Amino acid sequence: MTASPTVAPHGARVSAAELENFIALAFGAVGLPAPDARGVAQLMAQADVQGSEGHGVFRLPQYIRRIKAGAVNVRPNIRVEREAAGMALVNGDNGMGHLVMKFAAERAIEKAKTAGVAWVGAKWSNHAGPASLYSNMPAAHNMIGLYMAVGSANHLPPWGGIDMLLSTNPLAVSIPGGDEPPIVLDMATTVAAYGKVKTKAQRGEMMPEGWMIDREGKPLTDPKRANEGFLLPIGGYKGYGLALVIGMLCGTLNGAAMGKDVVDFNADDKSVTNTGHSIVAINIEAFMQLAEFRKQADVLVRDLRAAKRMPGVDRIRMPGEGSWQARLENQKNGVAVPPALLQALDTLAGELHIAPLGR
Amino acid sequence: MTASPTVAPHGARVSAAELENFIALAFGAVGLPAPDARGVAQLMAQADVQGSEGHGVFRLPQYIRRIKAGAVNVRPNIRVEREAAGMALVNGDNGMGHLVMKFAAERAIEKAKTAGVAWVGAKWSNHAGPASLYSNMPAAHNMIGLYMAVGSANHLPPWGGIDMLLSTNPLAVSIPGGDEPPIVLDMATTVAAYGKVKTKAQRGEMMPEGWMIDREGKPLTDPKRANEGFLLPIGGYKGYGLALVIGMLCGTLNGAAMGKDVVDFNADDKSVTNTGHSIVAINIEAFMQLAEFRKQADVLVRDLRAAKRMPGVDRIRMPGEGSWQARLENQKNGVAVPPALLQALDTLAGELHIAPLGR
Repeated sequence: MTASPTVAPHGARVSAAELENFIALAFGAVGLPAPDARGVAQLMAQADVQGSEGHGVFRLPQYIRRIKAGAVNVRPNIRVEREAAGMALVNGDNGMGHLVMKFAAERAIEKAKTAGVAWVGAKWSNHAGPASLYSNMPAAHNMIGLYMAVGSANHLPPWGGIDMLLSTNPLAVSIPGGDEPPIVLDMATTVAAYGKVKTKAQRGEMMPEGWMIDREGKPLTDPKRANEGFLLPIGGYKGYGLALVIGMLCGTLNGAAMGKDVVDFNADDKSVTNTGHSIVAINIEAFMQLAEFRKQADVLVRDLRAAKRMPGVDRIRMPGEGSWQARLENQKNGVAVPPALLQALDTLAGELHIAPLGR
Repeated sequence: MTASPTVAPHGARVSAAELENFIALAFGAVGLPAPDARGVAQLMAQADVQGSEGHGVFRLPQYIRRIKAGAVNVRPNIRVEREAAGMALVNGDNGMGHLVMKFAAERAIEKAKTAGVAWVGAKWSNHAGPASLYSNMPAAHNMIGLYMAVGSANHLPPWGGIDMLLSTNPLAVSIPGGDEPPIVLDMATTVAAYGKVKTKAQRGEMMPEGWMIDREGKPLTDPKRANEGFLLPIGGYKGYGLALVIGMLCGTLNGAAMGKDVVDFNADDKSVTNTGHSIVAINIEAFMQLAEFRKQADVLVRDLRAAKRMPGVDRIRMPGEGSWQARLENQKNGVAVPPALLQALDTLAGELHIAPLGR
């Protein structure tokens, strides 16, 4: 397939609505029912708007390839398979991960209204984009949201090993504030996410020591040699332990893939991944008056922000501040789509016979 | 107070039962009712048996000092203050943390039998010893246990800051295995726990780079200068974020101390700490057949352990393997009590008019 003649060599800025419409058209073209295509599109556009650019429309060509190859079910029967007052287990029926996790988060929120806290696991799901998309859902209902997942490719050996049996299993926690923005921690359990390594390689830059090691355990700083080594977990064996227990909570416990059963969805368009995730909704009002919690959260944030700073530090940052700022800016100015990505999306539009993005 | 004449200059090895009896006598002597004294003693002895030697009988003189100074309530009315199907909030009434968290863990286990998952927070509690003592409690009932706490002293500034407003808030997760030992992750959110720094100072050794930084952000490797710097969180700003959200989940949400309200209980024997903790019990059978989970957990552990190793690595270790081994050894040979500690305990025995440890 050759590039579309409508390529814009300088990239573009597109509104969230344009992005969402384009993504919805693409998923509609490969067989997702309209409400589902719209549901995934909303979440993917939201990922771009909050600055998680490695998890938004950037993933669209890959998602479409996997659907075309039969690896993802476009008409899943997403359902609660097991349930008790404080939990549910969702079977995603191999649907798009965004739909499965939206369903799971909504169940968690609904259950936490009466149970106070609800933990919902999901199996037979797929890559669902940035972790904080889902931890933010309970936060929009005056709840604390906690999301964990088995990552969609193994980049990590057990500590001291060289066989990559673990993923960079991410964790996100969203905590509502009062007048201050919410605290949103969204992190992989490795020092650097694999996407950051790829970015360094694209830019021809070296990585700092501490991101990766080679098979002898020596520092690896050339991102072009990334396939000769491994990402380092945060805190060494501690991050290995975190990746392992998150994987067991989201994979093993939910009956989803873990360890050697995890499919590298970047390298393999055809295999069903059986991705596992978990979401916890914690209803703040079950613990204390909401207004009091909001007040205390604000006091804490202001105390931290007012801390004396090290030389050269301009500002104490709260987790989630970056994505908060990105959201404000991107809502105002549109989302920047770099030239290479725009070209890939134009090619995709040609293949799917849909209108190209933003034009 | 002079040292007791019964000092054993070479330390001693004592059985878990001797340790427990001695600790129970000590707490009885300062006014804890007999069942409570025994309850704390069992958990503290268990801490030593599992090799958490900084959190067992080592803490006894400090705990007794704090009780004598009126900082801890020896006859607390530990009670459930709020409750829903999937959660409870325990008011510890400023009792010993061990009693509060045992109460909280038992409630979580009981609730998870029907709710599937139960989250129990605690406030007005105190230092409770090693995190894994409590995450292990659900694991003994075929559940996954998850424990978090606000640490009992602030050793961490917000990332980029120099005011110590955060503690090394620990996290423990205990996951039952089948034929393999359980996975027990028990970690502070800093690269090194503060106790490790103190041990280096005692031994006259330097610390590796990466444990601490000074007020300019430069590496600090001399443990004697520890008060000129700060512990480094795991993964830099990621560990800062983890410490913050764990603190908000266990402190702010439970109505317990967080941020500037955290009392340094190592420096202050008199102030009430209002320590917050949280425990989650996840009933495996709510998610899948227990036998199947045990089997899958064993397969995973064996796959990880069989991974190819880096040069010089003798064995791939699972989180909790060290404490598992320590337990086997200490149950057989007794717990080693070093000379300085034995002397301190003999002095304490003299003050409390109780029989000295092991003699």
